[in-house]
Amino acid sequence: MDDFHFIDGGVTAAQGFLATGLACGIKKTGALDLALLHCPGGATAAGVFTRNEVVAAPVVLGRERVPAAGVHGVAINSGCANACTGTAGLAAAEEMVAATAQVLGCPPAAVLPCSTGVIGDPLPVGKITAALPNANARLATDGGTLFADAILTTDTVRKEAAVEVELAGGMVRIGGCAKGSGMIHPNMATMLAVVTSDAVLSATDTHAMLSAAVEASFNRISVDGDTSTNDTVYLLASGASGIGLTSEDDRGRFAAGLRAVCGRLAQAVVRDGEGATKLATVHVVGGRNAEQVAKVGAAIVRSPLVKTALFGADANWGRIVCAAGYAGAGITPESTTLRLGDLVLYEAGVPTGAGRSQAAADLMATREIELTLDLGQGHAETTFWTCDLSYDYVRINAEYRT
Amino acid sequence: MDDFHFIDGGVTAAQGFLATGLACGIKKTGALDLALLHCPGGATAAGVFTRNEVVAAPVVLGRERVPAAGVHGVAINSGCANACTGTAGLAAAEEMVAATAQVLGCPPAAVLPCSTGVIGDPLPVGKITAALPNANARLATDGGTLFADAILTTDTVRKEAAVEVELAGGMVRIGGCAKGSGMIHPNMATMLAVVTSDAVLSATDTHAMLSAAVEASFNRISVDGDTSTNDTVYLLASGASGIGLTSEDDRGRFAAGLRAVCGRLAQAVVRDGEGATKLATVHVVGGRNAEQVAKVGAAIVRSPLVKTALFGADANWGRIVCAAGYAGAGITPESTTLRLGDLVLYEAGVPTGAGRSQAAADLMATREIELTLDLGQGHAETTFWTCDLSYDYVRINAEYRT
Repeated sequence: MDDFHFIDGGVTAAQGFLATGLACGIKKTGALDLALLHCPGGATAAGVFTRNEVVAAPVVLGRERVPAAGVHGVAINSGCANACTGTAGLAAAEEMVAATAQVLGCPPAAVLPCSTGVIGDPLPVGKITAALPNANARLATDGGTLFADAILTTDTVRKEAAVEVELAGGMVRIGGCAKGSGMIHPNMATMLAVVTSDAVLSATDTHAMLSAAVEASFNRISVDGDTSTNDTVYLLASGASGIGLTSEDDRGRFAAGLRAVCGRLAQAVVRDGEGATKLATVHVVGGRNAEQVAKVGAAIVRSPLVKTALFGADANWGRIVCAAGYAGAGITPESTTLRLGDLVLYEAGVPTGAGRSQAAADLMATREIELTLDLGQGHAETTFWTCDLSYDYVRINAEYRT
Repeated sequence: MDDFHFIDGGVTAAQGFLATGLACGIKKTGALDLALLHCPGGATAAGVFTRNEVVAAPVVLGRERVPAAGVHGVAINSGCANACTGTAGLAAAEEMVAATAQVLGCPPAAVLPCSTGVIGDPLPVGKITAALPNANARLATDGGTLFADAILTTDTVRKEAAVEVELAGGMVRIGGCAKGSGMIHPNMATMLAVVTSDAVLSATDTHAMLSAAVEASFNRISVDGDTSTNDTVYLLASGASGIGLTSEDDRGRFAAGLRAVCGRLAQAVVRDGEGATKLATVHVVGGRNAEQVAKVGAAIVRSPLVKTALFGADANWGRIVCAAGYAGAGITPESTTLRLGDLVLYEAGVPTGAGRSQAAADLMATREIELTLDLGQGHAETTFWTCDLSYDYVRINAEYRT
């Protein structure tokens, strides 16, 4: 049995956090586009960022600030990525941070900024600074859902997850929200997530815990293989529960709970992948080592041919084996087995014939598809998630700026 | 002025080759699906093959056979890739080769086989062997076009190119054909090409010349980023012109002519990319070295976000810079410039504003789009070609087996 269970809520599920979201006028539709999180007592915080060499201005500032203790707030705008905006963009991000620090009553170094939206447009920072006093006035311990709504862009649904974890000293909570439905790929795409906890954690702990959880969740999903300029996942721990990690057992329990929150958020991102109609879970097992199974899984989940076959409900296993073959991971067809659910499609280098069966067609017609590729070389394994590539993906991305 | 000029024709443009194509019954539609090329006097030959670790049976046989002298024929079927078919598939490929050798009157080692089509289906080799005597009877010195037609799968147009090259000793010809419109990516995707010449070349020369030409042509195109199990490019030189490469100057001229044929065929593949409505030429210049510009170009041309923006005629330069950023090639935004035609969209890390101009919209609305990304770091450069990602790409690949 797990030592955690899911509960309702997001960034304000844990004690010690207030949040809100409102419309400051960046999005022409009038939708919510400014999200504010406050930790009045200060939090330890860590971040994991995009590995793109072109990074947005808020990522530059965020990377300088964490891991750290004494973090008081997170300010996020949607509708404009403030990426590829040069020194003017950096100045705008700094202005956003300074204005947030002013309303929260903390130093600018205690504020973490994020932006998401169209790349290259100048950030209308005046709209943000004008709205911040109002945002500050609306901060509430049940404001997590507004916060979650205000960070969305092409997303069609809000993405929140929270758990309670039983530690030796008592119950702590971990909760968060995410946005993202395009530019999603291992190494984090246009994907933002903020996770909070009321456990007592050192800044070093937040960093170690977050890095491990991200590797098994946000770095295991792909919508389109593009890695964005803005990806950021933050973990903030308020310590408001007064309960810390007193043993290796506690550390393991907390890590499992954090991984569960990140995993559910990551899967929510894929489920909401631009134009997605299906979620595919791809297990790569029987590998020689972690690097090999990660390479193979990444090649499969980013293949447009695999993803269009998912959309077409076609058990075209050949495209999956082919993607594994070009991953450059040293697979051996004669030891490789591919299963769709429990149905063996390909074994020892040859198809079983089941790929054209009614059973395969029935499994492919469902909204949640489970594939297992056994490399037959060892015991390493990992799991990736991806969605299908549909007409709507093309429509959404062809028309994004128009 | 170039030392070559384009002429009509394909694999039978050069002297010393006969070819044909017919329907042997693999394709349910009754379309041509068996192509046969004969070099009665024997040819020197080289091949470049997929780097996928899962390779089709004919690739296994082809790789064993070249580079070599005394090659007499090439037999290609479309409609079935004979890939992921295990030992039975290998036996079927060997049977195809043996039957071809029998009708051509040469040893099996002198025949190069290729297959293209659906992965994983058993090769109906009986249909091929039954049709080979008829194919042999129809071989003709003007049969190149039937050959070109018979290797097509989802292609919508025939792809042929030929040149005459002026060498010191006189005029030689180089001509070829290609197939491919999906699974196309650097390192050669479901892409077959056969190029012939009547120049006198050693087997070593065919290999060196072909490798260099493929690197600058077929390895510079992307339709969907998938690298297939079957990719093969063959060069056969009959020597029937009696004219050899007598100097470095001759070698350079022949190389330029071969590169021109391969380049035109590669561009034809991209133009015919599944669902493509546009051809984009992407120049990456100002790089530190060849590896860097190749990495950056490959990331740009395989990005689904770049390709949907092309389809949407959206000068969304941010996606191009973003793709360059995640290529892992050490670009520096502050030295980077992006041009659409002559229009500068992004310079020194910031947008110029031209991305939203009418001039940009007009350029994006054309069927042939030229992009130049200057990394501002050195003098290395290369050119890639790609197509847009449209609704029809999704339709074609979602419905391929149905």
